Formats: sequence, C-alpha cells, structure tokens
Amino acid sequence: MHDFTYYNPTKIEFGKEKEHNIGEYIGQFGIKKVLLVYGTGSIKASGLYQRIINSLNKHDIIFEELDNVVSNPLLSRVNDGIKITKLSGIEAVLGVGGGSVVDSAKAIAAGALYEGDVWDFFIHKAQITQALPVFTVMTLSATASEMNGNSVVLNDETQQKYSISSVLLNPKVSVINPQLMATVSNEYLAYSAVDIIAHSIEIYFTATDHPKFNSRIVESIVKTVIQTTEILIKNPDDYNARAEFAWVAIQALNGLTPAGTAGGSFPNHMIEHSLSALFNIAHGAGLAIVIPAWMKWYKEQNKPQFERFAKKIFNVENADEGISDLEAWFKKIGAPTSLKDANIPSKAIPELAQNAHALANVWGIGEIYSANVISDILEKA
Amino acid sequence: MHDFTYYNPTKIEFGKEKEHNIGEYIGQFGIKKVLLVYGTGSIKASGLYQRIINSLNKHDIIFEELDNVVSNPLLSRVNDGIKITKLSGIEAVLGVGGGSVVDSAKAIAAGALYEGDVWDFFIHKAQITQALPVFTVMTLSATASEMNGNSVVLNDETQQKYSISSVLLNPKVSVINPQLMATVSNEYLAYSAVDIIAHSIEIYFTATDHPKFNSRIVESIVKTVIQTTEILIKNPDDYNARAEFAWVAIQALNGLTPAGTAGGSFPNHMIEHSLSALFNIAHGAGLAIVIPAWMKWYKEQNKPQFERFAKKIFNVENADEGISDLEAWFKKIGAPTSLKDANIPSKAIPELAQNAHALANVWGIGEIYSANVISDILEKA
Repeated sequence: MHDFTYYNPTKIEFGKEKEHNIGEYIGQFGIKKVLLVYGTGSIKASGLYQRIINSLNKHDIIFEELDNVVSNPLLSRVNDGIKITKLSGIEAVLGVGGGSVVDSAKAIAAGALYEGDVWDFFIHKAQITQALPVFTVMTLSATASEMNGNSVVLNDETQQKYSISSVLLNPKVSVINPQLMATVSNEYLAYSAVDIIAHSIEIYFTATDHPKFNSRIVESIVKTVIQTTEILIKNPDDYNARAEFAWVAIQALNGLTPAGTAGGSFPNHMIEHSLSALFNIAHGAGLAIVIPAWMKWYKEQNKPQFERFAKKIFNVENADEGISDLEAWFKKIGAPTSLKDANIPSKAIPELAQNAHALANVWGIGEIYSANVISDILEKA
Repeated sequence: MHDFTYYNPTKIEFGKEKEHNIGEYIGQFGIKKVLLVYGTGSIKASGLYQRIINSLNKHDIIFEELDNVVSNPLLSRVNDGIKITKLSGIEAVLGVGGGSVVDSAKAIAAGALYEGDVWDFFIHKAQITQALPVFTVMTLSATASEMNGNSVVLNDETQQKYSISSVLLNPKVSVINPQLMATVSNEYLAYSAVDIIAHSIEIYFTATDHPKFNSRIVESIVKTVIQTTEILIKNPDDYNARAEFAWVAIQALNGLTPAGTAGGSFPNHMIEHSLSALFNIAHGAGLAIVIPAWMKWYKEQNKPQFERFAKKIFNVENADEGISDLEAWFKKIGAPTSLKDANIPSKAIPELAQNAHALANVWGIGEIYSANVISDILEKA
C-alpha cells in the first residue's frame, strides 16, 4: 500500500428538495454575489431555475448569469464566465446542472483569480494557487465533479479536451437531490453508467499496486451501477435506485478508490477525450466504445485482475468472458460499442490517435500510449 | 435511501515516516503553541516522542504536555488538559497515540473554549459551538477517531462512559503511519479488529433502511479486517496488511457506511460501555463478549440481513451459522466471547444493565433497551 494524502472537504447535502436551501448553504460562507452557471435551458422548463433564484433572493444573494454551457464544455464559454466574474465582483460560482456545467464553474472559479489565460492550468504552464468558492446543484450524476477538484474543458480553438485538478476547486457544498435526475433520458442514463464504471475500473486494472480493499470498493460500485441502471431503465421514478446511482457516482471519483494504489492511469479517458473532442459525442458514449477495445488490448498485462473482475462482477471464470459480458451489458443498455455505432469513420483513426497521444504526453503516459498503440486499440473498436 | 449530510474535512496523511512532518502540517494553520497529549510512555520508549518534538521545534511550535492518558480515558485527566489550555494560551491539541488519547484530545479541544463543565456536552446539556483545532499521530487503529468528530470519555466520578460528536472535533490533519503500529500486541490487534467490525455492523443490522451499496461497503470492510488480522497475527511486520487494516478502520466510522441509512443505532457499543466502565476491560474485548449475545437476541428482527452477512462473510447459508462463525473467529484471534472469559461475574449483570440502560436513554434507544432486555442479552454472554 503506497503513501497517500486523502483530503476531500466538500460537504454533500443529499436528499429530496434540498435545492431549496442553496441560498442558506452559500450564505453561511458570508457570500453575497454569485455567478449562476447553467446549460441550455432545461432548468428553466423544469422550474428548478426559479427555485434556485427564490432561495438566493431569500438569503439576499445577488447574481449574474452564464447560460448555454454545452456538454463537452467549451473554453470560450469559460472565458465568457471569467470576464463576468472579473467585471462584476463575483464572490463565488454556483453551477446548476451536470458535469459540464460544474466543470465550467470550476474553470471559471480558477480563472477568476488569475491574471493570465486559464488554459495555462490545463497545459500545466501554471498552477492553481487560489480560486473562488464553488457550489453546485446537480441534475445529472456521472462525473463526480460534485465531490472532486477536477474539471475537463474542450479548447474549441485547438480541439484539445484537457483537465485540471485542485482541491481548491472542490465544491464547498454540493446539493444532490435524486428527484432532479428523474427526467434524464435512458440514453444519458446509459452514458452516465458507463462513465461511472470507467472511473472505477481505470486504476483497478492499471495500478501496479492495488490493495484488496480498493478492489472490493470498486466492485461494490460497479455492481451497484449495474443493478440500479437496470432498475431505472424500466422505472425512471424509482427514487431509491436513482439515489444509490447518484451516491456511487460520487464514490467512483472522489479520491476513495485510488487511495493507496500506485502506478495507475486513465488510458480510456485519455483516448475517449479525442473522440468527444473531434466528433462531439457524449463522453459516456465514447467510453463505451473505447473500454472493450482497450480491455482486449491490455488484458494480458494484468490477467489476475481481469479474472477477478470477470468472477466478481459477472460470475464467469475467465478474463475474456468478463470483457465480453461488459461489452454486452453496454449494448444492452443502449450504449455504442464500436466506432461504427457512433458513425465515426475508421479513416479518422490516425487523427484521433494523434489527438489522444498529445494528451497522453500531458498526462505522462505518452511513452506507453504512442499514436501507433492508440491506433491499434481503436482498430479493435 | 434517506436524506443525509456528508461532511468530513479531515485530511489524512497516510504512509511511512509521515510523523516527521507533523510540525509542518500544524504550522500550515499558523499555529504556534500546542498541547501534546499522549499515554503512559510507550511513545518515549519507541522514539516517536522525540521525532514529534523535533518536528515541532523545526517549525517553531512550542508545546505543553499532558501524559498519562489511559485506555477508557478519564474525564479527570481531560479536565487537567483543559486547565492547561486555558492557562497557557494553547492554540491546538495534538494527540499522539490511539483512540483514547485522541478522544481525550478532542474533549480537551471542546472544553478549552467553553466556560462550563465539559461533561455538559456528554449529557446533552450543552452543544459544542467552537473548539480548538485537533491534530493526531496514530499509534493504533481501531476507533477511527482519527477521521471523525467523536470522543468517548469515562466520567470517573459517576462511572458513566459517554460520548460527544461534532464536526468541529474532526482532526484537521491525522498522520497514519502503519509502521508505528507494528508493535501492537496480538491481544490488542484482536480487540481492534473486533472494534472495527463492531463499527461496521451496528447500523448494517439495525437500520430500517439500508441501501445495498452500504451493505457492500460494510462487507468489504469486514472481509478486509478478517484477512489482514489473520496475516498480522502470523507476521506483525507485514506492512501492506497493517496499512490496509489501518485504512479500513477509518472507513468503518468516518461517516461513509451510515450515509443514506435510517433507523440505525449502536446497541453493542451502548451495552459494552457498561462493561468497560465498571470492569475496566478493553473496549474491543467487551464488544467481543456483547456482539454474539446481542446477535442471538436480535437476529429475528432482521433475518434477511443476518442471512446476507452469513453468506457474504463466511459463505454459509443461515443466520445462526453466520453468528457462530463470527463468534468462533473472535475466539480464534484470542478475544473473550463470554463474561466468564473476562472474569466478569454473572451477579454483576443487573448493575451492568442499569448502567447501559442509562446510556440507552441518552442515545434515545431506552425504550427498546430496558434494563430487563439488556439483562436478557447479557445472560446470553
């Protein structure tokens, strides 16, 4: 078991109707003016927007707005948000939406107190030393952005989908009301399920040292995702399944699963980022395409863990069966499992591989994941 | 799944030799004077005391000392510590030891900023609204006090062993170096293992609503405790086993396992507190006596969960077998499983039951756990 620091100071307010208290949660920090960040309007149609405004008003918190944050959130929109914060004396950023909204809110919070270009943080040219406090009200569970310091943003000039991570960006308070997620389509539910599984298994398979307890936690998460997803596809209003799904989404990427591991990396995310950057597909859809291909390519490098996965998750005896069962499950819930399923032509593979390899270099795994290796993996998809 | 707030702002510094940095960790908070709380001298013999002092000196942190904290820590000694903090301008409390030392440090931290008697907090006569910051360097893993806001103290005048809980008492930083735990005797290792299992299973069995994910986490903890304890009994120097043991001890009582559950309580702890209060036995030893008896008494009230436990932990089919396998495992690792094993005469049962029932009233479960019911349970022990 390797040395580690575990520190996750985000407070989670989990439960029904908790968004009504968002003004109180923010007000407890003495904050009087926020930037309200959200997507393309569904929160207005659902009435959530009005409930947030009412709560802010009740606690005398004034706000500016940044709407129109899209999935695969854009750097240009983040920069719009940073301009508003700098001009308007914004004291905190409140993201209301899913992972893209919250990731944008975090990037704005980091950029707001930085003189240079916020992209400097993404390309490791500068380090985040301060940030505005971030708050969230979640409408989708997948990225765990509600309880970590990560943010992934697409640079719409360079087509690079890169990330930052700092505990300064951990939300101060995140509101998780599973009721707000009941209207998520089965399509996006499936993508979310794939994303959570991806977060759990990246280090599970790639770490050179992986304590048994961590394996057990990961398997607990994956089993719960599979069970609750199947319940929710049939009955989107099952509150308990929705709530468990939301809670394990958080556990998959809040620092718990990697604690004490060593040598792990996120190759599936690295490769996927090229798919969603260049073809604007949903992150979870891209992961469903990459993961089975990557598993087939990688399995011999950690056979015992692949066998363990097969046994614990699907109760089958060998690694190959485990991989094909996972791929079959992705298909069953409606996620694409090949480039063809997502209408990505195989002639795009060289460009995808170059894009992913550039990110591999930033993440320090460029030597393993050359453009050729990534092409080989994508050929399997 | 029930509404909950999850908030655990303790930073865990986990790994080899991390105690050398304790001065740095404290200094980052701008703290210049601490009260160093420890036990009966083993940290001096081991050299740990000197390493702590060196690190404090290096970071210009001066200190007063409170030694002689015993297991089942005494209110009188806590009051000694509070006196020192009030007289000496102490800014933080540093506990170096096991759960008793850290629990004492927390009670001192709460009492230091309170005009009245610190016992007021334990009998719910007053609420903790402020406390000095707490830091820890752990030499024993069991109570998870290193990552929660709980403190259990024995009032040596009234023989009441009561507890407090506040996020204000969560340590700011806890140092967990598993190397420091390698000298723990097999006897205390066994008691610690029982304590961790107890923390995990109290709510697992008693909650009226217990999400599957929580069950899986608890089973992951219990399996890991059993495996690592068996390794450590044979080879106390197995670092990885020691480290996993230390980490799951924390997970068992840091707020993760009860999140989203409802209706759970801590009856085994409630009953045990009377044993250690009146007979000064180790807390884990008392739990090993109480748990099998309580399980036999309680099992019909949540049969499916007892059957699940039997299956998942011991791979046996019925609840009774699961209980007897757990009892046999306690025996195997050297923990007492009857009052007789601990030289507690059965004629003491009425007094134990009265003592425990008084605590049951404080914890709001006095209606279920009358003195008669507690006597019935203890008769099975």
